[in-house]
Amino acid sequence: MAQKLEKITSRDTDFAKWYTDVVKNAKLMEYGQVKGTMILKPNGYAIWEMMQSILDKNFKDKGVKNVYFPLLIPESLFMKEKKHIEGFAPELATITMVGNKELSEKLFIRPTSEVLIADFLSNEIKSYRDLPIKYNQWVNVLRWEKTTRPFLRSSEFLWQEGHTFHSSSEEARNMTLDILEVYKSFVEDILLVPVLSGLKTDHEKFAGAKETYTIESIMYDGQALQSGTSHFFDNEFAKAFNIKFQNKEQKEEYAYSSSWGVSTRLIGALIMTHGDDNGMILPSKIAPIQISIIPVNNSESIIQQSESIFNELNDKYRIEIDFSDKTFGYKMSESEIQGIPLRIEVGPRDIADGNVVLSDRISNNKIKIKLTDLVNEVDKFFKDYDIQLKNRAIKNLETKLFSATTLEEYDSIIKNTPGFVLVPFCGEVSCEDEVKLKTSTVSRCIKDFNVQTNTKCFNCNSNAKMNTYFARSY
Amino acid sequence: MAQKLEKITSRDTDFAKWYTDVVKNAKLMEYGQVKGTMILKPNGYAIWEMMQSILDKNFKDKGVKNVYFPLLIPESLFMKEKKHIEGFAPELATITMVGNKELSEKLFIRPTSEVLIADFLSNEIKSYRDLPIKYNQWVNVLRWEKTTRPFLRSSEFLWQEGHTFHSSSEEARNMTLDILEVYKSFVEDILLVPVLSGLKTDHEKFAGAKETYTIESIMYDGQALQSGTSHFFDNEFAKAFNIKFQNKEQKEEYAYSSSWGVSTRLIGALIMTHGDDNGMILPSKIAPIQISIIPVNNSESIIQQSESIFNELNDKYRIEIDFSDKTFGYKMSESEIQGIPLRIEVGPRDIADGNVVLSDRISNNKIKIKLTDLVNEVDKFFKDYDIQLKNRAIKNLETKLFSATTLEEYDSIIKNTPGFVLVPFCGEVSCEDEVKLKTSTVSRCIKDFNVQTNTKCFNCNSNAKMNTYFARSY
Repeated sequence: MAQKLEKITSRDTDFAKWYTDVVKNAKLMEYGQVKGTMILKPNGYAIWEMMQSILDKNFKDKGVKNVYFPLLIPESLFMKEKKHIEGFAPELATITMVGNKELSEKLFIRPTSEVLIADFLSNEIKSYRDLPIKYNQWVNVLRWEKTTRPFLRSSEFLWQEGHTFHSSSEEARNMTLDILEVYKSFVEDILLVPVLSGLKTDHEKFAGAKETYTIESIMYDGQALQSGTSHFFDNEFAKAFNIKFQNKEQKEEYAYSSSWGVSTRLIGALIMTHGDDNGMILPSKIAPIQISIIPVNNSESIIQQSESIFNELNDKYRIEIDFSDKTFGYKMSESEIQGIPLRIEVGPRDIADGNVVLSDRISNNKIKIKLTDLVNEVDKFFKDYDIQLKNRAIKNLETKLFSATTLEEYDSIIKNTPGFVLVPFCGEVSCEDEVKLKTSTVSRCIKDFNVQTNTKCFNCNSNAKMNTYFARSY
Repeated sequence: MAQKLEKITSRDTDFAKWYTDVVKNAKLMEYGQVKGTMILKPNGYAIWEMMQSILDKNFKDKGVKNVYFPLLIPESLFMKEKKHIEGFAPELATITMVGNKELSEKLFIRPTSEVLIADFLSNEIKSYRDLPIKYNQWVNVLRWEKTTRPFLRSSEFLWQEGHTFHSSSEEARNMTLDILEVYKSFVEDILLVPVLSGLKTDHEKFAGAKETYTIESIMYDGQALQSGTSHFFDNEFAKAFNIKFQNKEQKEEYAYSSSWGVSTRLIGALIMTHGDDNGMILPSKIAPIQISIIPVNNSESIIQQSESIFNELNDKYRIEIDFSDKTFGYKMSESEIQGIPLRIEVGPRDIADGNVVLSDRISNNKIKIKLTDLVNEVDKFFKDYDIQLKNRAIKNLETKLFSATTLEEYDSIIKNTPGFVLVPFCGEVSCEDEVKLKTSTVSRCIKDFNVQTNTKCFNCNSNAKMNTYFARSY
């Protein structure tokens, strides 16, 4: 049969085109009928399932419990927290009718669920004994976006949103930071995507939050990707929704809260950090399939040998055999594009000699091994594989760290050698608005507040208060 | 401290009130702000997670892959299958605006996703080699309901919906029946809820389906609960959406499809099948917590002993210890209401004698056992527990099977001793409409088509074509 995989544009020729080529050829998603919506195909959804299973366990280890809150938010409820509604109003999908009947009140599809959860908890929380409350939900949310891009920005997306309430401000902030740490180690140690982490500036913090913490990764093309955020509300949401509890001293107090989320956008981070001109490259801990056994033909002895290899490795690894009637070359390319870490080629001559060939997705090197050493060799392969991938990603980050002291310098860097650019910054919302207007970029996160008193803001020249990373971003 | 659990209404006094009392006191759900929506609290969601994990594995064993399709369906797409849109039109929540802007086309929130998936696959399926395609998604759907009831009927609910496409009609019907079998064994062997299963009548089949198969359970009060359905579309959906493939003879053919789903309504089935006047009773395989260790006080030796019991059982069972400052009695009641199968009471006198007390959720019997026999005794307990629960449920079903030959007889049975009533039936939609008008009930499923030629329909007196179960239902 004449099956062909489409050619993938080279990463260095046109990164944006390369990205969509990979997404399409790896069969991760297609666009939905409604503009900006996504269909997650089996290969894409399987990666999300892997992420869910690992993160979910991490959350539960922190005492978080899963819940489900409704999709629809009445307009009146959304109006209770002003900064929050201002942040989301233009993006809200609005239900006005059911069947042929007009509704008496507009309903919004959740863009996030802070207001629903706060409203519910205003009845549930009575005493310090009811706290902390730590909820999480794995759900779809909707924020109407003008420009969309697979995984990175879509109107509807899948995410998890955690919402916690505490009896002290300190405990709520600690929860915010604990989760930031969960995100950081998940993204760095499982996805093998190095990040910078820290506080967002006032300009970039979440609508209604007192502090937003973020992890920011850098893609192969030098653009930053916000990969997870954790928000500390202090008692702002509790005030808006009248969530009070009786403390140990029997006094009424407003509760303190956090919220935090990561989304299917992390699939985009994986692709743009590790992928190459042959497609995706998946870290072993997140790969839905870690090993693909590819028989050179479907003769009886090859099938038998492939199955015996499968059985030998199946307890330890996520593994598949491709017995379809596609050609050997097609199967190899397909597995490569999908980023499966290891291919085991089973051919008649090698088998006769008691060998198989291991093919490495990172280097494309092939090594012939003795079948009797199979498990050892595969173990050895996987010991090394993630280290290679991580080191390569760290190296990419290191070559993309810059600094600047003036806007001209900054602008020249992000135009010529994009990356994270550390600048002295005043921290003012109006100043960051100006930077955005002039460069179409904003800050990613604050590095530190220890700036010398005579240092000037890279844009407005007033006294700098912090060193901050700015970057072009997705 | 003075904590009290609310009194639960007796099952035999007022079953509906009993049900909502249990739902509330077991902390399973609360109503959302928008009429008919549900908040699944941690205890309720945890049961759904257990169901998901078991069913998901069963589906994957049948070659099903998980996907995610968008929430929103454009009006034009929904109009392609006429019977389907007719079935759902009055229940559709409609988005007409985003932010302040009117949309050019109305968008519906999915009540189910057949049309989205069929539309997508019309581009994906080209050859018999692309088939079968077996998709499933775990999602929220929305069907505006006038009267709602926790878990049983709500506007928004969580479910899984499977959608498969095949290269022959026979294969598609076999898939429909395979999944019916998956549902049946899950509900009977894991939830321990006995069911009747079979075809739906034309009156009751799914909008657009050629055949609908169902599993129907009977609740303690004699009302039936539709617990899962599996639909065979033959090539009807493929025709409406132009899903064609080239078959092995290189001829174009329409594809054949099935769809199937179960929802959070199964949580309602669990409660109303097994629960008693003290609350829920959970089958061991679905119980998020199987054993609750309840210390009589929080003294050091009791804490130590409780932890050692926890460690001894933790590998084998899902287990928790309640070290909160609630009273012993409160903890016992709470565990009881939540339906946790086994409580282990750890008290100072028993500990001194090397004993603990096992308290059985079904019988409320307490037995004192030697700590040295702990694991054996607990294993023994669980061997017996599910059998007891299942037998009780089967007995309830058996006492609720009736038959009738006339409408008067039928009506008298469902008014006095509600249950499944087997009647000879003509199978006509118009006749079933009449029965519905007269008795507010419809058929649940067809038992068999082997009726004697001279048998008359229980309602219209024309020739009967099938023996069919009718019942009052949720």
